Amino acid sequence: MTSSPSVTIRRARRDDVRAIVEMLADDHLGRARERLEERLPDSYFDAFARLDADPDIQLVVAEEGGAVVGCLQLCMMPGLSSQGSSRGLIEDVRVASNCRSRGIGERLVQWAVSEARAKKCCLVELLTHHTRVDAQRFYERLGFSKSHVGMTIRF
Amino acid sequence: MTSSPSVTIRRARRDDVRAIVEMLADDHLGRARERLEERLPDSYFDAFARLDADPDIQLVVAEEGGAVVGCLQLCMMPGLSSQGSSRGLIEDVRVASNCRSRGIGERLVQWAVSEARAKKCCLVELLTHHTRVDAQRFYERLGFSKSHVGMTIRF
Repeated sequence: MTSSPSVTIRRARRDDVRAIVEMLADDHLGRARERLEERLPDSYFDAFARLDADPDIQLVVAEEGGAVVGCLQLCMMPGLSSQGSSRGLIEDVRVASNCRSRGIGERLVQWAVSEARAKKCCLVELLTHHTRVDAQRFYERLGFSKSHVGMTIRF
Repeated sequence: MTSSPSVTIRRARRDDVRAIVEMLADDHLGRARERLEERLPDSYFDAFARLDADPDIQLVVAEEGGAVVGCLQLCMMPGLSSQGSSRGLIEDVRVASNCRSRGIGERLVQWAVSEARAKKCCLVELLTHHTRVDAQRFYERLGFSKSHVGMTIRF
């Protein structure tokens, strides 16, 4: 793996939404869930407006040479447990398929872990599909442990 | 298991914080993490104020005969994936040790699933420690599947 010094992590903007949805759809689990149409459904932009206005949510992109090549969403939630510490939840980590194995995902996740730590979170958590064995190894390499079972109900 | 028709699910108030922290501490994993002192540390009340002011977070308690006998926190987060659907995250589910096996946890979780569904979430997710095998069976009985691995870094 080569590092990517030319990659910048920055807050996502409304005009990044299409590039982000393209990455979400470029995946065996995501393909069936997204609607990557010529005119992207308004629901994506409505969701962007909601999350962009939420001070506890940061949707960031990795940018290289003017192109969006990765994304990650970090949500920091207050709660009573662990003496009233907040928790960070990482979701929707993606790297463009032609840019993988170059350390971009690592840069994104390390950004999120540092950010959560700086904001006094007691932990960072994430769910990764049980079939994504490579992702689990990737997160273990970055210091995460497979401490929990992630359970879901999809409507 | 007998049902608990006399149990009410309601939004937590500031004067429930001690009862909630008592339940969080009454647990082999929670014991070391909480500070259940005569005067509860301010950090708990500061966290309560933050989450109580957050429109995306609902900390609820189960009340029976005027006593708090259970709690659950539901966070609903906007995001771009699944066509801009929100996700619900359940955390900090507890039932007082002398009130277990009476359907109170089930009432709490069913409330959260219904609430997330009513607010148009595409899924509800949670992490449960890999050692909590009974909890996993409980959630499977309520329709959750062990679809994901829950990964954490604790600071």
